[in-house]
Amino acid sequence: MVKVAVVGARGYLGRELVRLLTAHPNVEAVVTATTSQPGGVYAESVPAYGRGGPAMVDVTDPVLHKADVVFLATAGGEAKKLAPTFGTAKAVIDLSRDHRDEALHGKSPWVYGLGEPKPMVKKGTKLVANPGCYPTASLLALAPALAAGLVAGGPIIVDGISGVTGAGATPRPDLHYADTNESVRAYKTLGHDHEAEIQAGCTVLGKQALVRFTPHLAPLNRGLLATVHAPLSAGVTPGDVKAAYEEAYAATPFVQVVAEADTTHVRGTNRAEVAVDVHGPTHLLVARCAIDNLLKGGAGAAVQNMNLLLGLPPTSGLPLIGGAP
Amino acid sequence: MVKVAVVGARGYLGRELVRLLTAHPNVEAVVTATTSQPGGVYAESVPAYGRGGPAMVDVTDPVLHKADVVFLATAGGEAKKLAPTFGTAKAVIDLSRDHRDEALHGKSPWVYGLGEPKPMVKKGTKLVANPGCYPTASLLALAPALAAGLVAGGPIIVDGISGVTGAGATPRPDLHYADTNESVRAYKTLGHDHEAEIQAGCTVLGKQALVRFTPHLAPLNRGLLATVHAPLSAGVTPGDVKAAYEEAYAATPFVQVVAEADTTHVRGTNRAEVAVDVHGPTHLLVARCAIDNLLKGGAGAAVQNMNLLLGLPPTSGLPLIGGAP
Amino acid sequence: MVKVAVVGARGYLGRELVRLLTAHPNVEAVVTATTSQPGGVYAESVPAYGRGGPAMVDVTDPVLHKADVVFLATAGGEAKKLAPTFGTAKAVIDLSRDHRDEALHGKSPWVYGLGEPKPMVKKGTKLVANPGCYPTASLLALAPALAAGLVAGGPIIVDGISGVTGAGATPRPDLHYADTNESVRAYKTLGHDHEAEIQAGCTVLGKQALVRFTPHLAPLNRGLLATVHAPLSAGVTPGDVKAAYEEAYAATPFVQVVAEADTTHVRGTNRAEVAVDVHGPTHLLVARCAIDNLLKGGAGAAVQNMNLLLGLPPTSGLPLIGGAP
Amino acid sequence: MVKVAVVGARGYLGRELVRLLTAHPNVEAVVTATTSQPGGVYAESVPAYGRGGPAMVDVTDPVLHKADVVFLATAGGEAKKLAPTFGTAKAVIDLSRDHRDEALHGKSPWVYGLGEPKPMVKKGTKLVANPGCYPTASLLALAPALAAGLVAGGPIIVDGISGVTGAGATPRPDLHYADTNESVRAYKTLGHDHEAEIQAGCTVLGKQALVRFTPHLAPLNRGLLATVHAPLSAGVTPGDVKAAYEEAYAATPFVQVVAEADTTHVRGTNRAEVAVDVHGPTHLLVARCAIDNLLKGGAGAAVQNMNLLLGLPPTSGLPLIGGAP
Repeated sequence: MVKVAVVGARGYLGRELVRLLTAHPNVEAVVTATTSQPGGVYAESVPAYGRGGPAMVDVTDPVLHKADVVFLATAGGEAKKLAPTFGTAKAVIDLSRDHRDEALHGKSPWVYGLGEPKPMVKKGTKLVANPGCYPTASLLALAPALAAGLVAGGPIIVDGISGVTGAGATPRPDLHYADTNESVRAYKTLGHDHEAEIQAGCTVLGKQALVRFTPHLAPLNRGLLATVHAPLSAGVTPGDVKAAYEEAYAATPFVQVVAEADTTHVRGTNRAEVAVDVHGPTHLLVARCAIDNLLKGGAGAAVQNMNLLLGLPPTSGLPLIGGAP
Repeated sequence: MVKVAVVGARGYLGRELVRLLTAHPNVEAVVTATTSQPGGVYAESVPAYGRGGPAMVDVTDPVLHKADVVFLATAGGEAKKLAPTFGTAKAVIDLSRDHRDEALHGKSPWVYGLGEPKPMVKKGTKLVANPGCYPTASLLALAPALAAGLVAGGPIIVDGISGVTGAGATPRPDLHYADTNESVRAYKTLGHDHEAEIQAGCTVLGKQALVRFTPHLAPLNRGLLATVHAPLSAGVTPGDVKAAYEEAYAATPFVQVVAEADTTHVRGTNRAEVAVDVHGPTHLLVARCAIDNLLKGGAGAAVQNMNLLLGLPPTSGLPLIGGAP
Repeated sequence: MVKVAVVGARGYLGRELVRLLTAHPNVEAVVTATTSQPGGVYAESVPAYGRGGPAMVDVTDPVLHKADVVFLATAGGEAKKLAPTFGTAKAVIDLSRDHRDEALHGKSPWVYGLGEPKPMVKKGTKLVANPGCYPTASLLALAPALAAGLVAGGPIIVDGISGVTGAGATPRPDLHYADTNESVRAYKTLGHDHEAEIQAGCTVLGKQALVRFTPHLAPLNRGLLATVHAPLSAGVTPGDVKAAYEEAYAATPFVQVVAEADTTHVRGTNRAEVAVDVHGPTHLLVARCAIDNLLKGGAGAAVQNMNLLLGLPPTSGLPLIGGAP
Repeated sequence: MVKVAVVGARGYLGRELVRLLTAHPNVEAVVTATTSQPGGVYAESVPAYGRGGPAMVDVTDPVLHKADVVFLATAGGEAKKLAPTFGTAKAVIDLSRDHRDEALHGKSPWVYGLGEPKPMVKKGTKLVANPGCYPTASLLALAPALAAGLVAGGPIIVDGISGVTGAGATPRPDLHYADTNESVRAYKTLGHDHEAEIQAGCTVLGKQALVRFTPHLAPLNRGLLATVHAPLSAGVTPGDVKAAYEEAYAATPFVQVVAEADTTHVRGTNRAEVAVDVHGPTHLLVARCAIDNLLKGGAGAAVQNMNLLLGLPPTSGLPLIGGAP
């Protein structure tokens, strides 16, 4: 039985970590920490918890050092500062963007934590840079084609559509209910940091190619769909593509090849749905991947990585069946 | 370890039963049955299940008779016909309205299955009429006041607001997305069968009074709020009311007295939130109860009743922490 | 042709006033004013306006004094201070709560501006206290019964359900998209100021009775439904009730008696739908009224009142046909 | 003053046509016709109309031949059959897909009715093939770049995201509220007929290139966003692109170049918002266009085309200011 700590436990990713870890069969204690205002029991901050819960402690509280695994669900920039305070013996899983770049470019003790087709985290890994939500969906949509050498080059074009929880728990004028409901829009059109993450991920998965990524917001709470267009090598057939995907994901518990990916099929689970087609006229790969952005795109993947680094069964404590609608 | 069967496994309540029972620590096998078209594995009908799952069998399939507990999540009228086919040895939990009336009026082997303040189902109960969604919320909002003799008489006025899953999985013109989104409306204004159920429930809980119930539809998937107005006896103070509710629910794992009830706090859980106030000028009790209509208002309550009749821990297999948002 | 000014032109009510008045066939100029930051043209603050538009001026700008009618769509407390600055010659229509109480209790130059069954504003009225959104729907649901002496007494119980625009344009944690989507909840359960407004309105409309009002929030942008329960006098039949409502609203352009009121039927219009039934067992009137909270419940009613006080056709510049879905 | 007829007047596009044309200052009479069940007045079929309205007549009713302009808002295949029944003297505007292909490939009396940058319909045009919703947004996003010769070739990749009204008024299991809410998914991934329409439109607008189009559904009623990626010619700068768009749309009343396109800014209007950027690493044009799919993407564009062929002011009867939220 392990002890865990969640830093940033009131945020949307933090809440899901607390929920999953509290019910996790191999976890005996969950410490909830914050970089802002400690105090009170968890349910006072997060009513969906119900009653009671652990005390909210400050991130400097010594109790954190009793944890075997520390999850950092903090704002960008915080994890860089916090991670060293936990030393090197303890496992740290960083859900923020802070360590992804160095993890993807090697020469770093941090391991990028994409779980499929083959888990990048191994038993004994200590430092995990948990993938971003868009990169998770984009790379799951691309990985089998990249690994099998089916993609000819770039540019690989990714359009991502995310629910609003992806933007975090802090109120903003543009996320006020009445101004977000019925709104579809692109945002951070140039320079979203997930573009570089997807591109670096493609290199790691087998193909260097330029990536163009456009994120969009749609009026739902949870769910993320990445639609990917990539030029295929000459002679690649739809059958080759389907076979590569079926083979890559056949043995994985969390990724499934389907006719069409739908966020409602994976909501509330750590699963991903991947759909692939080949567009005849342009010979483009058209791949879609649907995930729950807070689970497979965040907290669920982080728990999956905890399971891997501790040598636990990969699905331990992770929901496979969705509760839609 | 028990074996269970779910009849009507493709409906919204059926799906939640299958999801909860598959993960239930005391359940070893789930049979999924249907009164319509059998065939195929469960995930073919319900994509949120992921991969595989049990075969969909016909309700007459002998495998159902190996189940220790049979859940009937069938359309109105079906359970009356099906229940006798399972004999008297096996436990049957009927989630439809078919047996509620006789269960509430006694002189029936069927037991009405309201779980709180005091569970009505006991270890060994064989036949359970699971409460309706609106009656569950309404009676939880009223029970402590009724039991403590604080309510003077009637009429008790209940306005219920439900999400759309309460109307079931069958497409209807009035539940077409574009015509339901942004729509708030009352429906079945006279003669919704939950009115009689709430009234009979009040009698069982300690007070005979006329009940007026108006159901409303709001554009959300899950969640039900009942707002109840009831005349209080002379001299009853807000303090008396708060004390009665706090005491009634203090020892229950699933019901919590809060300042304001919110469907998002209980979504995805078997919990209920109850809030109570006294309106000075009219001396009316104003009580609100929020539940997840598919869980505490249906499948969750049914599993809770299974736990009770089998003598299992009451919270076994039931989610307490919500995943909002 | 009249000149008008809208103070608080960036708020939700202000935006609708600007939109309606810009297209109004009897209006030649719209001044947009603010109590906060002036500067820039209107479309810079309100993108739905498109291009350009009038300059945003400060509320002290002399240009406001050239307006024939000034609309105050300001926060509570502001209109009390601003109204006197416009003197007594000019018509002022206050959409805030500031002057409703005195208007309803007489002995005030302010006239409460309920438009139906009989308009309270006359040609030549100078100062209008525009009704609140919940009181509009509640009083339209009650007025014919009150006027015809069908209501026996109290308490009259009103449950209101409103979309989120009713809470205004300022971001708040509890109105953050992800925390409001899928949420149904009561709020300001004791002491919402619309309770007193509804009660005073009932007196004006013919019946002194205690009113109990509970407001609820549902996840939609626009639309408000009031469900009203009131004890009927002995011997009143459903036929009496239907006849009273049909007669009261037959000649009105904006209020319609229907089988069931639905917010989507009136969205984007200045219309109201009213549905009435009699509940046999309790002999309660059950009346529902659906409006667009920003139009009939605010900006539309204000323009209707402008039409009345200027002696223009009552429907001038007001939408009757809705654009649902 | 003109007389018009709307065939398919109960569908979502038909409703918007009726609403716009009823308020149109140059229209004196609107005939509402149907290919299914005639009978009753319009408001009986479409409650948002309010009271009364024209009688629903059969499409063969002689009254249709008194109309100056006939709008066909019918299902695919119907317009091909109906159009010849109106002879050649009368103007016919077909909102379905039936005549778009021949209109785009010339050698047909049908004119493709894209309104901007330069209207394709002229005074006196008799037969108009109204553009599809996705092609409208896609071509508005591309037109200035194509016309200015900035696009190097293909493939041009279009990801479209549409609200649910785009799928029409007929209930379908996959558009049942509870299964559509919170769902984002691609659909008709290979072979949506708008792909060919966009490609043919590009040729007409100045550049032959292969087009790849993926449509997506998001949980909103109205609004469509097209995100377009196209390879730019060598040496084209972001400044060149911005200038081409600003110039192309400067004199148009309905299309506006903005920093970011948002469906809520154009909802309820006949406007379009276009945003353009150049992605440095891939030298791709990244253009977004937001429209209201039922207005600029359908009924509004059709009325705009009526204005053009009758020689009326282009904005006559068309909303420019949106009512969001």
